[in-house]
Amino acid sequence: MPTVRVTRRVHFNAAHRLHNPALGDDENRRIYGLCNSPNWHGHNYDLDITVEGEPDPRTGYLVDLGEVRDAAGEVLKEVDHRNLNLDVPWLEGVIPSTENLVVALWRQLAPRIPRGRLARLVLYETPRNWAEYEGD
Amino acid sequence: MPTVRVTRRVHFNAAHRLHNPALGDDENRRIYGLCNSPNWHGHNYDLDITVEGEPDPRTGYLVDLGEVRDAAGEVLKEVDHRNLNLDVPWLEGVIPSTENLVVALWRQLAPRIPRGRLARLVLYETPRNWAEYEGD
Amino acid sequence: MPTVRVTRRVHFNAAHRLHNPALGDDENRRIYGLCNSPNWHGHNYDLDITVEGEPDPRTGYLVDLGEVRDAAGEVLKEVDHRNLNLDVPWLEGVIPSTENLVVALWRQLAPRIPRGRLARLVLYETPRNWAEYEGD
Amino acid sequence: MPTVRVTRRVHFNAAHRLHNPALGDDENRRIYGLCNSPNWHGHNYDLDITVEGEPDPRTGYLVDLGEVRDAAGEVLKEVDHRNLNLDVPWLEGVIPSTENLVVALWRQLAPRIPRGRLARLVLYETPRNWAEYEGD
Amino acid sequence: MPTVRVTRRVHFNAAHRLHNPALGDDENRRIYGLCNSPNWHGHNYDLDITVEGEPDPRTGYLVDLGEVRDAAGEVLKEVDHRNLNLDVPWLEGVIPSTENLVVALWRQLAPRIPRGRLARLVLYETPRNWAEYEGD
Amino acid sequence: MPTVRVTRRVHFNAAHRLHNPALGDDENRRIYGLCNSPNWHGHNYDLDITVEGEPDPRTGYLVDLGEVRDAAGEVLKEVDHRNLNLDVPWLEGVIPSTENLVVALWRQLAPRIPRGRLARLVLYETPRNWAEYEGD
Repeated sequence: MPTVRVTRRVHFNAAHRLHNPALGDDENRRIYGLCNSPNWHGHNYDLDITVEGEPDPRTGYLVDLGEVRDAAGEVLKEVDHRNLNLDVPWLEGVIPSTENLVVALWRQLAPRIPRGRLARLVLYETPRNWAEYEGD
Repeated sequence: MPTVRVTRRVHFNAAHRLHNPALGDDENRRIYGLCNSPNWHGHNYDLDITVEGEPDPRTGYLVDLGEVRDAAGEVLKEVDHRNLNLDVPWLEGVIPSTENLVVALWRQLAPRIPRGRLARLVLYETPRNWAEYEGD
Repeated sequence: MPTVRVTRRVHFNAAHRLHNPALGDDENRRIYGLCNSPNWHGHNYDLDITVEGEPDPRTGYLVDLGEVRDAAGEVLKEVDHRNLNLDVPWLEGVIPSTENLVVALWRQLAPRIPRGRLARLVLYETPRNWAEYEGD
Repeated sequence: MPTVRVTRRVHFNAAHRLHNPALGDDENRRIYGLCNSPNWHGHNYDLDITVEGEPDPRTGYLVDLGEVRDAAGEVLKEVDHRNLNLDVPWLEGVIPSTENLVVALWRQLAPRIPRGRLARLVLYETPRNWAEYEGD
Repeated sequence: MPTVRVTRRVHFNAAHRLHNPALGDDENRRIYGLCNSPNWHGHNYDLDITVEGEPDPRTGYLVDLGEVRDAAGEVLKEVDHRNLNLDVPWLEGVIPSTENLVVALWRQLAPRIPRGRLARLVLYETPRNWAEYEGD
Repeated sequence: MPTVRVTRRVHFNAAHRLHNPALGDDENRRIYGLCNSPNWHGHNYDLDITVEGEPDPRTGYLVDLGEVRDAAGEVLKEVDHRNLNLDVPWLEGVIPSTENLVVALWRQLAPRIPRGRLARLVLYETPRNWAEYEGD
């Protein structure tokens, strides 16, 4: 069977702030600019979840994308309509840049993919600004 | 000269929370669900600013959309990367639903339009969810 | 209170065929071309549901768009992943052009809007091709 | 029969320059900025053509959008991959701002609509910048 | 000369049903859910065709994308406005999942690419759901 | 630290013409068709700039995308609202096909990326037509 990739796009909304508590306020403002605003800001995030493998000849599915959506839903309910700096156990101590978020999401999602293997995540912070990760 | 409409799309990111302090916590949760999350969430907002009038025969412009963008920028710098519940003087006491926001933005933008008249605002909270206002 | 409009986009997939059984096969082919293909074809439909009215000062909502989505869901479950010519009681005898579909959807949706009034439906058959209806 | 609107999106690419030959070079630069660049610039234009009327009960079509596309094609072949300042007889003496273009396109398209009446044109110069016209 | 990739997006509409005739009706319903609806459903498919190679220094083209569009048109006329389960000789016996479709399209398209080599196909079943294939 | 990729989308508008002065006019028309129109045509170009590397643990940034945007701005100011055949020193003698443009932009942008390394450029001539380059 040929190796293919299938992708499901999911989304969530969240508040965050870019701030490194190990640095002073001036240094944080210099590095992050508006993204360091003290009372948070937020985004509509889109996440493209790509799974790679061979389709099952019995079903024609590499993986049931409805199951991928549900597996992602278990993870995303912890970030959707939440504050990424305050509310998410698996983001404790993580500066919520798009780069760091996409890696943290990978670690949550990879073990939950029911068939095939997680091959790529693309996390859109805005339609003009995104990060992708293909695992270590 | 014919009457036409021109539109400029601008954008901003902000955190907010839907919460009416005059109601109890349970009632707020019942009305707003996830949008009532205590530590805020946020959105990438798009705002379509439509101006109506007759093009100036000398320039071919109803209004210079660069000037519309700059006028909008004066208003949007007060909401971009801000918390709509905490940081914006002209939103004090306003529950920041998309409906209320688009009306509040109208009141800030209408007097700043340099030529023609503000005819319509469409505020997108997400690509599937928006409010429009055409004035009183 | 100012009058505003809020919109929620929903979607469904369906098969259909443009065919008027009162006309001959040649006439059907002449009028509809490829859209008359005997074994059906299909589309990803997007539907923008716009409600008009005054926001409730207690909630800031003209209407809870989650309730609009749920009301639409009751209607859309009858067309989603269905054949518009064969499976939908309220489309019996209706040629499923985008024009006819948007009017039929209005009649199903208008009485289900929980607050405000249905003001406009826009039904996208493709991203380049759509119909809109604002009621009689 | 109910009155509905149907829309077909078409597109073209063109070069242009904003320049009023009755004004001096400095004045042109002051008014138009980069859009006055002497060696032209260009855009991918999208044009949404909206026709209003009652669907024909025999076909379910207000108008065959394939015929609208073909009628538009007769007009657009004169602007597609052309220079709007130099190549188009019906734009002679017109400063090709989006406002002026949408009105000029209306005059070309309105008499060619085969059924119903032209109700609205929206001309997108960029995805963030557009003009609409609904006739005189 | 450097190796680059060029992509042309094309589209088609089709009806289909996910169903494995070797399995019972209950099993099919369990595996495919709504996608197993007996009277078909359908989609607007987008297909991104990516060709890789070195630009021809005489023309600046790796491949004339108009020729790619025409080559794809020969293939797509067999699926456009068709039923993928019933109407397409080269899909006989294929369960028309997005995974299987993208592989079948590759086999049709690869030998028709006039210059360079087919490097990737991405087939969008919906804007949130797609499959990609890079050959064996 | 994991290796990730971040992307920033930027845009510019320009006029161009596909024409090889070493060939005759008939040959140019045969190869390029409408793209050879003598008085130019133009496009809204989008450019996706992808940088690869390890996030800085102190900031969470692989690279500050605001700095990428500014570095790109230095290059894009030379093509934005310009004629790609006439106005750009680093395009002299280059037939401005999308393939050739994306390679020329790489050579300008690669040395300006302030952290990490330029990994991919995708240049969209239209939403249906693009070229990508990952370096030599």
